Amino acid sequence: MELLTTNNVWMMICTALVFFMHLGFSFLEIGLTRQKNTVNILFKNIFIITIGLLLYCLVGFNLMYPGDFNGFLGFTGFGLTSPLTAEGALDLTYNAGYTYWTDFLFQGMFAATAATIVSGAVAERVKIVPFMIFTVFYVGLVYPIAGSWKWGGGFLQDMGFYDFAGSTLVHSVGGWAALVAVWLLGARIGKFKDGKPQAIPGHNLPLATAGVLILWLGWFGFNGGSVLSADPALTSVVLVTTCLAAAAGGVVAMLTSAIKDKNLDLTMFLNGILGGLVGITASADVVTPTSAVIIGAIAGALIVLAVALVDKIKLDDPVGAIAVHLFCGIWGTLAVGLFSTNPEHSFLTQLIGVVCYAVFCIVSSFIILYVLKITMGIRVSEKEEVEGLDGHEHGMDAYPDFRLNEQ
Amino acid sequence: MELLTTNNVWMMICTALVFFMHLGFSFLEIGLTRQKNTVNILFKNIFIITIGLLLYCLVGFNLMYPGDFNGFLGFTGFGLTSPLTAEGALDLTYNAGYTYWTDFLFQGMFAATAATIVSGAVAERVKIVPFMIFTVFYVGLVYPIAGSWKWGGGFLQDMGFYDFAGSTLVHSVGGWAALVAVWLLGARIGKFKDGKPQAIPGHNLPLATAGVLILWLGWFGFNGGSVLSADPALTSVVLVTTCLAAAAGGVVAMLTSAIKDKNLDLTMFLNGILGGLVGITASADVVTPTSAVIIGAIAGALIVLAVALVDKIKLDDPVGAIAVHLFCGIWGTLAVGLFSTNPEHSFLTQLIGVVCYAVFCIVSSFIILYVLKITMGIRVSEKEEVEGLDGHEHGMDAYPDFRLNEQ
Amino acid sequence: MELLTTNNVWMMICTALVFFMHLGFSFLEIGLTRQKNTVNILFKNIFIITIGLLLYCLVGFNLMYPGDFNGFLGFTGFGLTSPLTAEGALDLTYNAGYTYWTDFLFQGMFAATAATIVSGAVAERVKIVPFMIFTVFYVGLVYPIAGSWKWGGGFLQDMGFYDFAGSTLVHSVGGWAALVAVWLLGARIGKFKDGKPQAIPGHNLPLATAGVLILWLGWFGFNGGSVLSADPALTSVVLVTTCLAAAAGGVVAMLTSAIKDKNLDLTMFLNGILGGLVGITASADVVTPTSAVIIGAIAGALIVLAVALVDKIKLDDPVGAIAVHLFCGIWGTLAVGLFSTNPEHSFLTQLIGVVCYAVFCIVSSFIILYVLKITMGIRVSEKEEVEGLDGHEHGMDAYPDFRLNEQ
Repeated sequence: MELLTTNNVWMMICTALVFFMHLGFSFLEIGLTRQKNTVNILFKNIFIITIGLLLYCLVGFNLMYPGDFNGFLGFTGFGLTSPLTAEGALDLTYNAGYTYWTDFLFQGMFAATAATIVSGAVAERVKIVPFMIFTVFYVGLVYPIAGSWKWGGGFLQDMGFYDFAGSTLVHSVGGWAALVAVWLLGARIGKFKDGKPQAIPGHNLPLATAGVLILWLGWFGFNGGSVLSADPALTSVVLVTTCLAAAAGGVVAMLTSAIKDKNLDLTMFLNGILGGLVGITASADVVTPTSAVIIGAIAGALIVLAVALVDKIKLDDPVGAIAVHLFCGIWGTLAVGLFSTNPEHSFLTQLIGVVCYAVFCIVSSFIILYVLKITMGIRVSEKEEVEGLDGHEHGMDAYPDFRLNEQ
Repeated sequence: MELLTTNNVWMMICTALVFFMHLGFSFLEIGLTRQKNTVNILFKNIFIITIGLLLYCLVGFNLMYPGDFNGFLGFTGFGLTSPLTAEGALDLTYNAGYTYWTDFLFQGMFAATAATIVSGAVAERVKIVPFMIFTVFYVGLVYPIAGSWKWGGGFLQDMGFYDFAGSTLVHSVGGWAALVAVWLLGARIGKFKDGKPQAIPGHNLPLATAGVLILWLGWFGFNGGSVLSADPALTSVVLVTTCLAAAAGGVVAMLTSAIKDKNLDLTMFLNGILGGLVGITASADVVTPTSAVIIGAIAGALIVLAVALVDKIKLDDPVGAIAVHLFCGIWGTLAVGLFSTNPEHSFLTQLIGVVCYAVFCIVSSFIILYVLKITMGIRVSEKEEVEGLDGHEHGMDAYPDFRLNEQ
Repeated sequence: MELLTTNNVWMMICTALVFFMHLGFSFLEIGLTRQKNTVNILFKNIFIITIGLLLYCLVGFNLMYPGDFNGFLGFTGFGLTSPLTAEGALDLTYNAGYTYWTDFLFQGMFAATAATIVSGAVAERVKIVPFMIFTVFYVGLVYPIAGSWKWGGGFLQDMGFYDFAGSTLVHSVGGWAALVAVWLLGARIGKFKDGKPQAIPGHNLPLATAGVLILWLGWFGFNGGSVLSADPALTSVVLVTTCLAAAAGGVVAMLTSAIKDKNLDLTMFLNGILGGLVGITASADVVTPTSAVIIGAIAGALIVLAVALVDKIKLDDPVGAIAVHLFCGIWGTLAVGLFSTNPEHSFLTQLIGVVCYAVFCIVSSFIILYVLKITMGIRVSEKEEVEGLDGHEHGMDAYPDFRLNEQ
């Protein structure tokens, strides 16, 4: 009882920290885009967290953790099953690490994250209503089904695939959809001139920086809570590997970009930290601190290269979501096979897992987005894009008291 | 001992989260008002939290929890009684859920909240010194006396009135004073033109949004800590009902305003979340998740109607504090009588409680504010209001490097 | 085992809160300076936390806690010693309060703080690369060596010197270097006109205010975690004394500045809170709540006087770091000798400790900074300073969409 209480306290705190990541994502996304689309981005993010929780309660939780199932798709019914015992008291035999309710809420906070990743990539030109519909399907169905394959005890769990806290199950799942969405949407007006990528500077770097620090804080809960108990050794090792990978990712991305572009680039520094965090997420509990530094450092270098590559193939990802969540998510998942202290983890199995998720996420996000594209359209009009989504979609300005530059 | 330690850890964390709500309130309030009054608002909020803690230490705690008393008013003396035992060690027999010190600090963080609610409603035209005097009396005397009636074991506790974490004891107590203050102060210049309410847009929607997310985070502690221990079943159920009500409140307010005003309104979405949170606060531990969704959803719809109503009766509440804290506070308190799984809770008793608090808060806030109005005045001069309170009351600008629009 | 788990949970949460202080410092520093140097300040702060953690892993931790040593300087080797037992399981016999890993991470978060203090004082004119080099030496070597003298069990520990959570070991260590750096750098262009100090207003007071509230939140972990366990009596007393000192510091600084300058000055209010927090940090576990209020109140008055004094001797400290961290750090350390309930604490020993740290920090920071000054220079060109460091050092604007005033 004492231990359950302590475990549950830790898990509730981690739940709160993962919830708080939604402020981090919001700040990062508005900070790295233009002020004229700020209200729109905030609206999207607030929609994702609220509808995400409701959907996870209605269908997601029971899709993702269906108990015994065929390994591909299972569902145990709508809504939360009330764990009341015959005597009317709440049942505490659910788990040694937390209660049924904590489990639901912790996992529910994760669910919304996948759509948030997409939100960043499609910013500044996506139509709001189709995006909301996409969110409903992606958070309500795709994410939990994908999650059931591994965390719900499905076929990838049986194969020995390992993803501690979601380099693949959360970050790549969001990243693949971001890639598909960016490709279907096309680049923002002005992003490519004569085939060359143009910088479109973010309008509020203090908020972008705050976003990254809030996300890092949230990762204490994201990875720390993925231990699923307050086990003192495991949780504290996980926090150490997580923080060291973040620090190494940031420093290496900063140095790489300083060498490559002769500039001390704050946004690369920030994205390097995120890359390190995404990279360590699959393996935080099974690698040494030294391995964590290496994993983070490689993620940091990867970010700089991936951002350049995305630009090169003429995809327009305003916040670098594909580089951070997809590239580093894949890297982190494969890194389990290279650095894990558990001899049962293998590079090949990790690769198979990555491919399975790639296929499922690309196909499902393509179907959803393509249907939306040919029915209601997914991109705002040129006039709306130029003038900003805030006025057209929401009828408000984010900063009405300030004088703005022509953009 | 192990369990006390765990309980106390949870309560300290909840205390920290409730403290952090003061940043949420500050961000929300400045975000929804004009930049020329920003320093003034921040000053008010910082004053409330600091003086609030000192007053709660000096008189509030012993007014609110006087032990055995007549049920209406009790006081056990100034300052904190030091719980040192004969041997000089700190006494740990105070409570199984937390220490004497944690109890004081958790309750102290609550106390300041009531005045903060008023601060939002009177923003942009209240004189700072009278507001500070009002705060001293309202936080130092009115709030703790009102609290003693229920949480201190007073006559409403004896009657069976239920208010888990303060839909009435905190939110309506602030809300009634906000109503009185707004009525005594009058509307801001320009708010009503030819009898029609005019929108006065808030100057910083990213900070307003951040404020709501920080408040939601804070509610993990506000409601979660009101269990007064880390009981795993109760705390985790409370977090689930709290978050589901918030999500439902937001989504329903957004949809209601989309239907009513044909607009995807970010500020209604945000206030809907807050309405859901205030609404669930009285019953978070005694309702099912489904009931929580319903309570939150009704609160969300109520917000949209209440904001329109407040406008209609020509009251000027810049941040929607009356709609959020008073209307949803009353709703949440009555909802206990409708949705509680505890058969001893009754709608009638809840209604009696609401009326008792209404009378006491209206009368006491009217007396304080009316005396201030006829002695030193509570409203700034027209010139000061037009030019902004920041320059006149504080001699500083919030954003001196930016060019501003004429307002 | 139950108790270790609970203790460790508390320590991990405190670690997260201390980490979050880096956002507080960042917001405070950019809020109180001009927008044209914002990216530069954010870059410095992100660098400090990332490189700080890596260095603390590589050398700092083993310099600061070398086990048995001569009391002045010890080192047990590079990197983290892996606490795996023969059986490959993580060793849990390290400590009753937390694991080896939690210990490292908590202390690592502290380490970066010292350099952050300096960052504020040198803002708006320091060259970025020399500052980064300074950070490496100060965080990597000076801070941990200084720390080993007391917290590592060195000669000041043997003498009976007391510093609970770092009024001296963290805040003065940063404050002395800030003093030396400010003196070597000289004042910003325009700070002194005809020998008179000119106000250079900060560009974003909402963020400055948020910074202080985040720092106060972080202090729950900074002081609460310095108990080094979740002991319910001690941790909760520490939170009470910490919060009361913060509140008293703020209110007294506000009143002092209202009397002295006839102005309700928000930034003095904020710095008063920080002064109270720094002041109570040395004694938070050994004083009564009443003493805490007195210590905080004196710190609040001291802030107002110290800011005026720093101006008077023509030092230019844009954020008031010297007043807050050095003056109040010294005051707090000496206050142990005056207010401690432990009769073994003496004013004289505290004074000796202050002097030892003064000598070591002044000498070491002077050497590092002077060598940097005569080799690569530590101050940007006049043109760069006038136009802003953001464009010159980083090639970006913090707020490119907004129109700015000429500065």
